[in-house]
Amino acid sequence: MVVKVGLIGYGTIGKRVADAVALQKDMQLVGVTGHSYDYKIEVAKKKGFRIFATDGMEDFIKNNIQPEGDINNLIEEVDVIVDCTPKKIGKENKDKYYLPKKIKAIFQGGEKPDVADASFVAQCNYNEALNKNYVRVVSCNTTGLCRTLYPINQRYGIDSVHATMVRRAVDPWDIYHGPVNAIVPVLELPSHHGPDAQTVLHDVNIFTTAMSVPTTLMHMHSLIVDMKKKATVEEILDMFRKTTRIRVVRNAEGVRSTAEVMEFAKDISRLRGDMPEICIWEEGVGVKDKKLFYLQAIHQESDVVPENIDAIRAVTGFKDGKKSIEITNKAMGINNF
Amino acid sequence: MVVKVGLIGYGTIGKRVADAVALQKDMQLVGVTGHSYDYKIEVAKKKGFRIFATDGMEDFIKNNIQPEGDINNLIEEVDVIVDCTPKKIGKENKDKYYLPKKIKAIFQGGEKPDVADASFVAQCNYNEALNKNYVRVVSCNTTGLCRTLYPINQRYGIDSVHATMVRRAVDPWDIYHGPVNAIVPVLELPSHHGPDAQTVLHDVNIFTTAMSVPTTLMHMHSLIVDMKKKATVEEILDMFRKTTRIRVVRNAEGVRSTAEVMEFAKDISRLRGDMPEICIWEEGVGVKDKKLFYLQAIHQESDVVPENIDAIRAVTGFKDGKKSIEITNKAMGINNF
Amino acid sequence: MVVKVGLIGYGTIGKRVADAVALQKDMQLVGVTGHSYDYKIEVAKKKGFRIFATDGMEDFIKNNIQPEGDINNLIEEVDVIVDCTPKKIGKENKDKYYLPKKIKAIFQGGEKPDVADASFVAQCNYNEALNKNYVRVVSCNTTGLCRTLYPINQRYGIDSVHATMVRRAVDPWDIYHGPVNAIVPVLELPSHHGPDAQTVLHDVNIFTTAMSVPTTLMHMHSLIVDMKKKATVEEILDMFRKTTRIRVVRNAEGVRSTAEVMEFAKDISRLRGDMPEICIWEEGVGVKDKKLFYLQAIHQESDVVPENIDAIRAVTGFKDGKKSIEITNKAMGINNF
Amino acid sequence: MVVKVGLIGYGTIGKRVADAVALQKDMQLVGVTGHSYDYKIEVAKKKGFRIFATDGMEDFIKNNIQPEGDINNLIEEVDVIVDCTPKKIGKENKDKYYLPKKIKAIFQGGEKPDVADASFVAQCNYNEALNKNYVRVVSCNTTGLCRTLYPINQRYGIDSVHATMVRRAVDPWDIYHGPVNAIVPVLELPSHHGPDAQTVLHDVNIFTTAMSVPTTLMHMHSLIVDMKKKATVEEILDMFRKTTRIRVVRNAEGVRSTAEVMEFAKDISRLRGDMPEICIWEEGVGVKDKKLFYLQAIHQESDVVPENIDAIRAVTGFKDGKKSIEITNKAMGINNF
Repeated sequence: MVVKVGLIGYGTIGKRVADAVALQKDMQLVGVTGHSYDYKIEVAKKKGFRIFATDGMEDFIKNNIQPEGDINNLIEEVDVIVDCTPKKIGKENKDKYYLPKKIKAIFQGGEKPDVADASFVAQCNYNEALNKNYVRVVSCNTTGLCRTLYPINQRYGIDSVHATMVRRAVDPWDIYHGPVNAIVPVLELPSHHGPDAQTVLHDVNIFTTAMSVPTTLMHMHSLIVDMKKKATVEEILDMFRKTTRIRVVRNAEGVRSTAEVMEFAKDISRLRGDMPEICIWEEGVGVKDKKLFYLQAIHQESDVVPENIDAIRAVTGFKDGKKSIEITNKAMGINNF
Repeated sequence: MVVKVGLIGYGTIGKRVADAVALQKDMQLVGVTGHSYDYKIEVAKKKGFRIFATDGMEDFIKNNIQPEGDINNLIEEVDVIVDCTPKKIGKENKDKYYLPKKIKAIFQGGEKPDVADASFVAQCNYNEALNKNYVRVVSCNTTGLCRTLYPINQRYGIDSVHATMVRRAVDPWDIYHGPVNAIVPVLELPSHHGPDAQTVLHDVNIFTTAMSVPTTLMHMHSLIVDMKKKATVEEILDMFRKTTRIRVVRNAEGVRSTAEVMEFAKDISRLRGDMPEICIWEEGVGVKDKKLFYLQAIHQESDVVPENIDAIRAVTGFKDGKKSIEITNKAMGINNF
Repeated sequence: MVVKVGLIGYGTIGKRVADAVALQKDMQLVGVTGHSYDYKIEVAKKKGFRIFATDGMEDFIKNNIQPEGDINNLIEEVDVIVDCTPKKIGKENKDKYYLPKKIKAIFQGGEKPDVADASFVAQCNYNEALNKNYVRVVSCNTTGLCRTLYPINQRYGIDSVHATMVRRAVDPWDIYHGPVNAIVPVLELPSHHGPDAQTVLHDVNIFTTAMSVPTTLMHMHSLIVDMKKKATVEEILDMFRKTTRIRVVRNAEGVRSTAEVMEFAKDISRLRGDMPEICIWEEGVGVKDKKLFYLQAIHQESDVVPENIDAIRAVTGFKDGKKSIEITNKAMGINNF
Repeated sequence: MVVKVGLIGYGTIGKRVADAVALQKDMQLVGVTGHSYDYKIEVAKKKGFRIFATDGMEDFIKNNIQPEGDINNLIEEVDVIVDCTPKKIGKENKDKYYLPKKIKAIFQGGEKPDVADASFVAQCNYNEALNKNYVRVVSCNTTGLCRTLYPINQRYGIDSVHATMVRRAVDPWDIYHGPVNAIVPVLELPSHHGPDAQTVLHDVNIFTTAMSVPTTLMHMHSLIVDMKKKATVEEILDMFRKTTRIRVVRNAEGVRSTAEVMEFAKDISRLRGDMPEICIWEEGVGVKDKKLFYLQAIHQESDVVPENIDAIRAVTGFKDGKKSIEITNKAMGINNF
């Protein structure tokens, strides 16, 4: 059986999910939506994706693109919608289209948790999403927290986590927002990332603070984990190395910053230079009694992309989460180096 | 006949030239050199490239890479060396290795012009490099100037060119150099780019000023060309559109900055997100009498890569420059969209 | 006689003009307006400025500041208004307040030229503003162009000017706008700066192109001037050194970038680290026949501030422009080092 | 009695300390040293500071500055040297000049602790420096940690501190170093700041991690303090507000980032726009049981300046540390708003 997938919201995440769906043998990308003509739509057309228009067709037709219909037409042809629209629009789309049409949908982390029946990180709680109608893939930062905290909690138990999230200012393409030369504290305590991680790691006590800095490439997290048992640095590194969608990077081989993580991703021919794995610095892992310290970098544009693929499988009844992750990883080249 | 190519200096340009050589059916990449172990060498090994060590083998062996020899061993196996070492080392290598060993070599624009028998931009002066022993591919900025000025000069004649070169501070991976928050004027008049362009466009009168700004993605040139004949904006755009290794980009389709040029390159699956074409904004071309104005963006990491490939063909006797450009472009996907 | 001045729009420019007015012996700062409570208003209060509220008083009172009235109350007490509100609001204020109340007003360069009877740069066209009701101080970039082109035109005559304006992305305090890592071309030819300079230098032929870059400190202009007569570099430098509100800076004494211009301004104890003088690099001035090249840096936050002071004098009938400039400069410490 | 002070190393910190010494009624700035001619020396001369040359006089004389002697000549005239030279040179100077000449000296935090008899933050351990020969003012970040942790420890007791230090890439004037677009983790655990803080707060358990980000303005610290007793947010804020050289800033009045802290410092007419107080965000303070969270910004160019002044008093026998702080603060305008 091939799952028919419709992609609504062809932006930073949406275009990546579309490509990832197209790479899966058990999925078919029926089409993608756009709201106005631009180079992204031109590329989608060149890739052979069918285009559906969300806000009228004139702008497309004027530019020699003939949309195949509107959002309703797309929904009629698919088994699952992946909604990658900006914050709050996913919820609006749910009320306007997905509920009335009784179509399953995957939402992104910009939506509030109650938009969905489950918040989701494949390697942590695949089964919670199984056969659900609505699933929410959590945000890039939350995904990063969950992926690395989950195995710690499984193996050593976690009393509490305190993390400082140093966020990139904007995505690389975004020329409109700043800061250009400032550090901007996020003045909510905890920042939303902690509670959000708890929608996936229900019983883990996480407290986060956050700030924004003038870079476009990746987020960086500084984590302090109070574990229930002792561990050595080498045991922790070994655990991370064996965990899917995590990558241990090494200053010793020249990966000294988020910039070199990105350079490495380009060098290994990743599509768009993406690095969906959470990158932990080998030299940045430390242990003091039962306290664990580590630094991890999050590629905000891509880490949630494989999660969306696994979420599609989960909602359509594919039972084996571990197997889904394997299939997704193989198709996308994750942990292939 | 397959040309055997050795690559010396596996950095920003070198690793790209190595990949480009590997893509050519009429070339064989014999091996690449590295001076110490890092992730770039790890990737080269994974790609199956043979590694030669320039500064001793210990660092490699310690990291489970067994170099196949040193720089002399590499030279013995090849027809041509492409030297992508940092400024001044190419000249040292010439004196130490290439001249004594009588091996043909391609140098980069960081070397002085007299390192070679000809400075080179394939679409401007391929024939000057034909069968020469030493050819210098000019720098990224000079290549950009030459590619777009050459057809103007051919068709309309050029009285003089005045260009302001706004340079990216550092390459994306470089965390060591600034500026972080300043504009730095280059206080030489003209900047070296003008005279350098004249090593290729011998009879074109070019005057350049330059400055550095805190960005990593691309250079931007603002050009004023005094032409000998009048032209309309549409004629100029038409000419640029028909010229190889130039791309006319459009604000109207959302390409509003160097950031979106790079995003577009990623979207069309370019290796490393490279954009070897010189990008001219459609909406930035203006004509006032016989004065032509335009803005072009230069991807400093990649525009010279196809030039190196064509230079290899030129020095090894491949006579048809236009055909070489076609072969190179096709293999690398240049102007494929 | 002391001119009573009211300041409307207490932002980046407004707060500086308020301070500058307060420094003039022939002026009295009656009060400033704010639209909501923030640290700027808190500082204004500490400085002893009377506060008037533009959008209701609740927010101020809640924070223990009792405004002395609204915009109408302020107007009633003053001879001249300096309007430093954001683009378009100056025009709205004119129609709503200044015309009905028959009060003279100075506007900023964000307004269109027809808001006023004259566009103004004191050292170029003081007399055009004399006794006018409405005068527009041109923008920071235009002021920079006019200050340095005017003496060239006076002494050597100008055939044409071509300038590339490399603009800072945002003011230092602005954390909201970008770009963070891109060069953004301004895709209008000419950019608005050229025509705007002609509102002051009526007969000078100026063509400008522009781009934005990720820095907050200063704009940089690269200028090419076709002069009617020849000049030597030393003559040009000598001319600039003798011209008010211009500063010739020297790489040779360590002023290598906009960052070091700002550092120098701080070192000489300028209020807020401001540098109202247009800074020309000694080593960046070049001459080729009758073509003149130079690079100048513009402190966007402060260069128009002394212009506002002189404009106040002009509209209130102070006849000697040169004398006004001298008084303003002395009070503000301009060209004092 | 007036203490005669010599300043060696007239850079970012040195020039500020020189100005601060000149402001103290009980001190006399005998002179400052420079190693080569630049605008900073030109300004020093204009301010009337006597100049001594460390590396020969030619460069100065060529530029019309006549140094009054060398480093030995300066030492002969003073009671105390403040050494603000770059890392390691202070130690060299000690061995070469200060020990042989038996002159008291203040060093900066770039030197190792054993260069001095005591490491120093005035409000934490003034008495340790009293009458010592050599005192080391700790670095900007360490000073920031000590100032805010000391009162917490005094009042509530500290079990442990975990801090993430997000460092500005370079000082504003520095155009040479990066990163331009990356987050660079400091891969030592703990970063040196923790142990360094313990040279002042001997019995406080501090663990720090650090990273660099592309901004020039201030450092930001995210702190987690395990206190021995409970406290409310309001009690903590009240304590900070009453502690000298700390400033509680408020998002509610528009101080939303390090950029606006700097803007505020300029607005209140601070020399060079400096903010020697450690700035804590009111809205960034949180308490959870006995855990305290807060975010503080550190102006790396100026927070150690008043410490140097107090250190001068301490080594020359001024017994009352609290009084010294008061005098210094008043002269420099610290906590004056």
